[in-house]
Amino acid sequence: MSPSTPGARFDHAYSRDPHMPLVQARMGAACRGYTVDKGLSGGTPGSDPTYVGMCHIFSDSVEAFQAGFGPHAEEILADIANYTDLTPVMQISEVVVG
Amino acid sequence: MSPSTPGARFDHAYSRDPHMPLVQARMGAACRGYTVDKGLSGGTPGSDPTYVGMCHIFSDSVEAFQAGFGPHAEEILADIANYTDLTPVMQISEVVVG
Repeated sequence: MSPSTPGARFDHAYSRDPHMPLVQARMGAACRGYTVDKGLSGGTPGSDPTYVGMCHIFSDSVEAFQAGFGPHAEEILADIANYTDLTPVMQISEVVVG
Repeated sequence: MSPSTPGARFDHAYSRDPHMPLVQARMGAACRGYTVDKGLSGGTPGSDPTYVGMCHIFSDSVEAFQAGFGPHAEEILADIANYTDLTPVMQISEVVVG
């Protein structure tokens, strides 16, 4: 989740492709799929969204995510600089309803 | 998105059911589906997640969401108090990859 910040750089097109396909390729079967969101507004029309961009990566378990992402973390995180100067907020969640 | 806050109340079971099925029922076809996430950790194992709980509601357009959610916003937002004393952060996003 990339916090919406005035003046920050965020290239939605690069984030969608080639960044996320790179993540998929490096993680292989450990990435069961992913989503990409582009922030439009807050809950009130015309307000700023909290995040300019978000992605979700779906894995079978935390362990599967770590096994797939960990070995490629350096390359994947370095590629983030190619689409934004923002530092993304990361979190691990359990899918309760998917 | 409900910010993870020490000491705050958050009933994941109530959030999953009956809260989200209430949202689905009131929005009808304007809610094409929804997801529910339970925060486990930040990006670093053992760290706190940014959000204790998150949900996504999928609609065909911003207008469809507003038309479906708006008339029931008071009832739906009031029901949030039944599972948390946190104030959720809301945002509207475009689904770039879904």
